[in-house]
Amino acid sequence: MLDYLESLPSQVRDAFLIGSSTPFPKKFHSQIKRIIYCGMGGSGISGDLLKVFFDQTSDKSWTVLRDYRLPSWVDSSTLVVLSSYSGNTLEMKSIFREAVRRGVPLIAQTSGGWIAQACHKNRFVQLALPAGFPPRCAVGYLTFSLLAYFVNAGWIRIELKDWEEAFDAVEKFPRGEAKKLAEKFSGKNIRFYGGGFLEPVALRWKTQFAENAKTLTGYGSIPEIFHHEVEGWHAPSAMIKKSIGVFFVDSDEPDWLVRKRKVAMNWMKKSGADSISIQAKGHGILAKIISLIMLGDWTSYEMALLNKEDPLSIKVIERIKAAEKTA
Amino acid sequence: MLDYLESLPSQVRDAFLIGSSTPFPKKFHSQIKRIIYCGMGGSGISGDLLKVFFDQTSDKSWTVLRDYRLPSWVDSSTLVVLSSYSGNTLEMKSIFREAVRRGVPLIAQTSGGWIAQACHKNRFVQLALPAGFPPRCAVGYLTFSLLAYFVNAGWIRIELKDWEEAFDAVEKFPRGEAKKLAEKFSGKNIRFYGGGFLEPVALRWKTQFAENAKTLTGYGSIPEIFHHEVEGWHAPSAMIKKSIGVFFVDSDEPDWLVRKRKVAMNWMKKSGADSISIQAKGHGILAKIISLIMLGDWTSYEMALLNKEDPLSIKVIERIKAAEKTA
Repeated sequence: MLDYLESLPSQVRDAFLIGSSTPFPKKFHSQIKRIIYCGMGGSGISGDLLKVFFDQTSDKSWTVLRDYRLPSWVDSSTLVVLSSYSGNTLEMKSIFREAVRRGVPLIAQTSGGWIAQACHKNRFVQLALPAGFPPRCAVGYLTFSLLAYFVNAGWIRIELKDWEEAFDAVEKFPRGEAKKLAEKFSGKNIRFYGGGFLEPVALRWKTQFAENAKTLTGYGSIPEIFHHEVEGWHAPSAMIKKSIGVFFVDSDEPDWLVRKRKVAMNWMKKSGADSISIQAKGHGILAKIISLIMLGDWTSYEMALLNKEDPLSIKVIERIKAAEKTA
Repeated sequence: MLDYLESLPSQVRDAFLIGSSTPFPKKFHSQIKRIIYCGMGGSGISGDLLKVFFDQTSDKSWTVLRDYRLPSWVDSSTLVVLSSYSGNTLEMKSIFREAVRRGVPLIAQTSGGWIAQACHKNRFVQLALPAGFPPRCAVGYLTFSLLAYFVNAGWIRIELKDWEEAFDAVEKFPRGEAKKLAEKFSGKNIRFYGGGFLEPVALRWKTQFAENAKTLTGYGSIPEIFHHEVEGWHAPSAMIKKSIGVFFVDSDEPDWLVRKRKVAMNWMKKSGADSISIQAKGHGILAKIISLIMLGDWTSYEMALLNKEDPLSIKVIERIKAAEKTA
């Protein structure tokens, strides 16, 4: 796992080249109005991160789907972006077949498997990623290849200085900070909260704590949690006293949001729970996002060590995957 | 709270009339390709339920936004559907102002407040709902008015027999079943799981347990949880032994999904946790959804009684709302 964690700097640089050099069909510029990104688990996080940049800078809508069937509104003006690192995800094979049957445009990001072959056969563009990583550890490849691909196409905007800041940010591994956080979280019921471009960060921490540290956590988006979830920090009392709310925060937030968060954190403390905020570092949102993703990956790794769990083992996921085939 | 729960049958019938009789601007038919629904908390659940019907039967895309800013891709071909039961939600006032500033089409559902006035002033269509309910208790008004409105416009399809089945389904209050479930859930760390049209059901149970029973729970979508969350059912061990996985299931699921769920439930039991499945009742998905929403509302109410909490009190939410104004 350490090797994978330490591969992030080379991943993001390689991925930038892969994304920038993969051909972009010119007809897409006038044809495509909507994009539906499809991906599961570790392969799916790049969709949430791309959504941030489409929502902030694009005239094309970006929808994330974690399912095995396409919505009825997917048509020739909708691009299916299919993400399956292994190339063998059941849900994504199902989506691929449906897209072909319905004749809708598709591109895929994968390192091989059934989907790479099917792309070749159907002459679909493939963002070809290096193989050999667990999907969740290929987050640099998955995210930065798609970002570079769509920046290159002119569909989203990322400034050169923001790329450079992100490349620099992933060079410094946050092992010390991660270890301290894991110790603080140990034995706790953890809830991760983030808003706007920090919402996918909160989701990533939750999924990494599950897969790496074998720890069940929760996550929610801000300001949505201020409309229901905050009331839940009261029962069952024994669990609340062992709970911790983790808020990902950004220095550019409006004042009213900061004030609301303070009230929520005070309530958690009054209920006997703990709460902390973790500040996004950097200027551009790309660096802010990737450095917090990296911190979460390292913290979930340190948490696995504390829990005496093997961070690489995914035996439950594998057992469930084996159930795809009938006996 | 009992009065509100028992108002559901009259809510869905009134809402059907409201939705069917609210004028639909003809120009929308050719103009609109994408819909972005905006709503927070109790007012926002209708967006997730409408999404089910748009994804299954429409050629227009439906996106749910729980935030205070519109994505950059919202344009004149995008209809903003704004949901704020009170008409005074900060985030929705912000969205409304941005929509006006950017000149994008908008309709709103509200019972009054700032947004009703602003709709009148700007000549936007308003789905006018009866006032006097806590937003989460107006789920019948919020959901069925929008469903009827868009069925009437021909943008989504619901068969007459499916409406009738849903109207019948809400007549029988599931108090006995709710009480038994609340007793089973008492003192537990609860995780609600549902896939496809049952995903918003799982989300609704989570938010209702927070607001009514003051209980923190988790939720996840199927099959996505089979790619990470299932691994988390291991640590911290003391919490897992007090956890219960609640699976909302439908008789029309494919076999592979049923097999995967069984493996996941077995793993939960092996980890010392509990798990149950709750079957959707009925033939059409509208009846299946609304009867499970009703069961969740009643179960969260019974849970509040068990927890000796006032299901109507939302003092934390109110304190956070008060922080909108500077001192």
